[in-house]
Amino acid sequence: MRIEIVAVGTELLLGQIADTNSQWLGEHLAALGVGSHFHQAVGDNHQRIVLAFRTALARSDGVIVCGGLGPTHDDITRDALAEVMNVPLVRDEAVVERIRAMFSSRGREMPESNLRQADVPDGASVIAQTKGTAPGLICPVGHKVVYAVPGVPYEMSDMFERAIGPDLQRRMAEQGELEGTIASRVIRTWGMSESGLGETLADYIVGLDDEAGEGAGTATIAFLASGIEGIKVRVTVRAADSTTARALLDLHEDAVRSILTGAAGDVVFGIDDEAIEDAVARVLTTAGLTVGLAESLTGGLAASRLVNVPGASAWFRGSVVSYASEVKYDVLGVPEGPVVSEDAAKAMADGARRVLGADVGLSITGVAGPAEQDGQPPGTVFVGLARPGHGPEAFAFAVPGDRARVRQYATIAALDLLRRSLSAADPG
Amino acid sequence: MRIEIVAVGTELLLGQIADTNSQWLGEHLAALGVGSHFHQAVGDNHQRIVLAFRTALARSDGVIVCGGLGPTHDDITRDALAEVMNVPLVRDEAVVERIRAMFSSRGREMPESNLRQADVPDGASVIAQTKGTAPGLICPVGHKVVYAVPGVPYEMSDMFERAIGPDLQRRMAEQGELEGTIASRVIRTWGMSESGLGETLADYIVGLDDEAGEGAGTATIAFLASGIEGIKVRVTVRAADSTTARALLDLHEDAVRSILTGAAGDVVFGIDDEAIEDAVARVLTTAGLTVGLAESLTGGLAASRLVNVPGASAWFRGSVVSYASEVKYDVLGVPEGPVVSEDAAKAMADGARRVLGADVGLSITGVAGPAEQDGQPPGTVFVGLARPGHGPEAFAFAVPGDRARVRQYATIAALDLLRRSLSAADPG
Repeated sequence: MRIEIVAVGTELLLGQIADTNSQWLGEHLAALGVGSHFHQAVGDNHQRIVLAFRTALARSDGVIVCGGLGPTHDDITRDALAEVMNVPLVRDEAVVERIRAMFSSRGREMPESNLRQADVPDGASVIAQTKGTAPGLICPVGHKVVYAVPGVPYEMSDMFERAIGPDLQRRMAEQGELEGTIASRVIRTWGMSESGLGETLADYIVGLDDEAGEGAGTATIAFLASGIEGIKVRVTVRAADSTTARALLDLHEDAVRSILTGAAGDVVFGIDDEAIEDAVARVLTTAGLTVGLAESLTGGLAASRLVNVPGASAWFRGSVVSYASEVKYDVLGVPEGPVVSEDAAKAMADGARRVLGADVGLSITGVAGPAEQDGQPPGTVFVGLARPGHGPEAFAFAVPGDRARVRQYATIAALDLLRRSLSAADPG
Repeated sequence: MRIEIVAVGTELLLGQIADTNSQWLGEHLAALGVGSHFHQAVGDNHQRIVLAFRTALARSDGVIVCGGLGPTHDDITRDALAEVMNVPLVRDEAVVERIRAMFSSRGREMPESNLRQADVPDGASVIAQTKGTAPGLICPVGHKVVYAVPGVPYEMSDMFERAIGPDLQRRMAEQGELEGTIASRVIRTWGMSESGLGETLADYIVGLDDEAGEGAGTATIAFLASGIEGIKVRVTVRAADSTTARALLDLHEDAVRSILTGAAGDVVFGIDDEAIEDAVARVLTTAGLTVGLAESLTGGLAASRLVNVPGASAWFRGSVVSYASEVKYDVLGVPEGPVVSEDAAKAMADGARRVLGADVGLSITGVAGPAEQDGQPPGTVFVGLARPGHGPEAFAFAVPGDRARVRQYATIAALDLLRRSLSAADPG
C-alpha cells in the first residue's frame, strides 16, 4: 500500500507557512507500515489540484489530501475531487445539521458560506467532524482511494487516527499485505565526516542489501549531516511488529557502534533525540562533577546549549563570556598575550574552574573570521580543559564555515571533548 | 516563469525531518516574481526521482531539486539528472581539486567516496561550492532547466542567492517576462501581539485594497510571528521597475511606522534582515558605550546573539552566565536572597557593569519552568539595567511558552529594552 500526500494551499507554495501536516502524516503512515513514495504541494487552483490528484493516483495506491475544505471561496478541494471522481457534488443534510449545531452551541449564527462544507462528491463517505466545521471525505476513485482532511493540524490528525488509519489497515488486510511496521533509530556522531562514516560502514550496508535479497530483513542506513547536531546515522527497519522492530534496531545499533568505535574511537555520543548537551549532562552526573565555562569565540553559545538540559543547575555552574581581552586578563586571570593560543585556552579553563567554583573548567577561544587574529586563520579553535587531578590541557581544531558555523562547530567540538574526557582516559 | 521544487530524501517522506528548504525556496522565488505551482518530495530511489523530475518538467518551466548530492551511496540525484538529460556523468577535475583543497585545509584526508561529488552530467554547468563539498548543478533539459543544490539549508540558500536567482532573472529578461518587479520590505517589531498589529493596521490595509481597485498600486501587508526574531510586518509591492518599487516601499514603511509608533510607541526595531542584536549594536555605537551582561535564565543566549554582529568587540565586553546562585553572590556581588527578583536583577546588572568593565550592565533572571522558583511562576522574567548617570533599574515581564521559548522571549525582551533605553528617555 503506497499513499501519496497532497497538501493544498497557495500559502505553502509561497513559503508563508511550513508544511508540517505532510511531515506528521509521513511519520504516521510509516508507523502503520504504509509506504509513501511522493508528497506534493499545490496551490488553490482548480485545474492544478485536479492535475496533482491525477498525478498522485497514477503512481500511488491512494492519496491523502490536506487542506482546501474550509468555507471560503478559495477552498476548492471538494470541487476538484468531484471532477476527478467524475460525479456531482451533493449537499449532505446530516452534515448541514452538524455544522449548524456547532455554531449554535457557540451562540453564533452560521454564515451561509459554511453550507459549502456540506457538499460531498456523490459516492464519497463522510468522516464526521468533531473539532472543526469541515468534515473529512473518503472518496473511491476506481479501485483506489482519496482521503480528504482539513489543513488545520489538530483536525487533520484527529481524522487520520479516527478514520483514515483504520481504513488503511482494513484495506491492507483485505489485500493480504504484511501488517508490518517501520521503525527507525538515529545514532548520533561527532568526529567523522559524512563520507568517512559512509566508507567505514560501506561493507555493513552492502551486507544489509544482501540480507534483504534473501528475505531475512529490510534494514536501510542513511546519513544526515546536521551541523551543530553532529552527523546522524539513521537505521530503518521493517518488521512484523514493533517488538521485532525494536530487537532488530538493537542489533543494528550494536553493530554500527562497534564498527565505528573500532575505526575511529568514541564517536557515538547519543541516540535519537539525545543531543551533545544531554551526553555531557550524563557523563557529569555519572562522575558527580560540576562544570564551568570560559567562552570567547563562542560568546555564550556553549552555555546556552548546556542550560537546555532540564536539571542543569545540578552540574552547570555558569560561564564567563570573555569577549574583550581585558575580561580574560582581569576576570579569568589569563596572562597578557595572544588570546588565540593553547596557553590562553589552558589559562581560561583554569580561570573558569576557579572563578565559577567548578570541578571541571572548559574553555573555547579561536577565530570566527572573516579576519585573522593573533596570526591564526578563521576556523582556528583552541579548547582548554582543566580537570581534577590533571594539569590544564589544550586541544586544537580547525573547523569550516562562516562566523556562525565556526561558532557552532567549535561549540559541539568542545562539548564533545568534555564528554570524551570524562567517559574515557583519552580525550583525543 | 514557473519553477517546481523537488525535495529529495527518504527522511522527508518518513517525516523524520521537516522540509524547510521548500518553504525557503518558495518564499524567495515569490520575491523574485517567479511562480511555483507545485512542490514534490521524493525518496532516495533512482526510478522515482527520475519520475518526479519528468513530472515536474512536464508541468513547469524548470525545477529546483534539493538534496541527494552528498558523497554517500544514497546520494543519487546526479545519476537521476544524467538519466533525465540522457547524458553520461563526467568527472570534473576542477571540482575534484576544490574538494581535495577543502579537506586539506582542515588537515584531513579526502575519502575516495567524495570524488562522486565531482561527477557532473555532461552539458551541465557547476555552481561552485563555497560552504560544503558538493557543488550545485545547472542542467539544461531541452529548453527547460533543472537546478540541483545540496539539501544542507545554508549551502542551498547560498547557491540560490549566488547563482540560481541571477540565472532565473536572466532567463525571465530573455523571455520578456520581467514585466515589472515584486519587492518586499519587512518591518520588524517587538512589544505588540500579532492580532494587536493587525487591528492597529486594519484601516490602512483596507485602504490599500481600495487603492488597488483603482489601479493606483498593488501593495499587500502580511504578518508573521517569528518567535525570537519578533513579529514581522511584510509589505509587498508590485511596480514597473525597482526604483518605483523602492519608493513605494519607502512610503508604506513610513506610514506603517507612524501608525505603530502612534499606537504603541517605539515597537519597530529593524528593517529586513536587521535583527534585535543589530539594533542594539547601532544604538551602542551611536552612544559610544560598551555593554556587559549577567545572564541567569537565558544561560548565555543573549551574549551569543550579540556576538553574531560583526565588529561586536568594539562595544561588547562579555557576559557572566551565573547559573548557580553562588556565582551570582560570589562573582557578581548579588546580596544573598531570592535570585528571581527585581533586587537581584538590579544587583546583577550592576555587577556585570563592574566586573566586566562596561559602561552599561544588562541582566536577565527568571523562571524557565516547568517548576516555580522563589515563589514565581514559569515565564516570570526580570531584566536589570545599570546605565551611566542612573541608579540600577529593573523591569518585569511575563512571557509564554516552554523552557526554550521562555529563554528566547526573555532574550529579545531584554535586548529590546536595552535598545529602547539608549534610543529614548523612556525605556518602558
